[in-house]
Amino acid sequence: MTEINPEEMNRDLCPVMKTVSVIGDKWVMRVLRESFLGCKKFDDFQENLGVSKSVLSRKLQRMIETDLLYRKSYKIPGERRRDEYRLTGKGWDLIKVVLAMMEWGNEHLIESGDRTLKVVERGSELPVRLSLLNETGKATDWYSLNLKVDQK
Amino acid sequence: MTEINPEEMNRDLCPVMKTVSVIGDKWVMRVLRESFLGCKKFDDFQENLGVSKSVLSRKLQRMIETDLLYRKSYKIPGERRRDEYRLTGKGWDLIKVVLAMMEWGNEHLIESGDRTLKVVERGSELPVRLSLLNETGKATDWYSLNLKVDQK
Repeated sequence: MTEINPEEMNRDLCPVMKTVSVIGDKWVMRVLRESFLGCKKFDDFQENLGVSKSVLSRKLQRMIETDLLYRKSYKIPGERRRDEYRLTGKGWDLIKVVLAMMEWGNEHLIESGDRTLKVVERGSELPVRLSLLNETGKATDWYSLNLKVDQK
Repeated sequence: MTEINPEEMNRDLCPVMKTVSVIGDKWVMRVLRESFLGCKKFDDFQENLGVSKSVLSRKLQRMIETDLLYRKSYKIPGERRRDEYRLTGKGWDLIKVVLAMMEWGNEHLIESGDRTLKVVERGSELPVRLSLLNETGKATDWYSLNLKVDQK
């Protein structure tokens, strides 16, 4: 691993910007939010998001191309075959980004006393929080980080 | 705390979408990335981002209004007084969102063997990873979460 000087950093390497290029569209985040809430059917996405069929089709198709969603057909007896839109593993892994946004929103955009959404651990019902751990499982201070160029 | 049925969820409460409304602009993420790399001066932002002065001014002003950045003036002897643009505490707290995007990008958008950027713990130089802990400090499974409506 090579330590780098931020001034000389090659910004083309930045995985954060690569991620923004995939999910940096408000509609992608809206569809993801619905998917994480369990939404799978076209009509349900449309109703929950209040969007036209053509816009939604285009957004879902794009998210299939970027491998965030996949199509799975289903059939209700007496009706025609339809598609469900489900999260791929790659899409599901965005849970960390979604939870990080949720924490920040709850911390900084919600007034004290206002109602909001929170995630809790199923079973214990205890609130959960993102933490930064090193490879040995020890908590790391958010302020004590270095940036490195490395091979995947 | 009240457990909710996702179908009946009031989407106006969603802190993720509130966050997207503040940072869901590619330029905001680009400026934040530079700020986390230590960039403070207008000319440095401009050079690193390859953007016009007028666009950059507007983006920085907007990020001051949403309290992600603040202005601090400085003076080099013999030159006129200038402004630096620094992260507020609220802006700095987006580190979790940035690191979550970095992890996801490294996991899913970088080919094995390609060079990329990673964060390591200063001192030990060990790789770090976001984890989900409950209030007692115990690790929580990403798949074992419930969503609740609660007061802040």
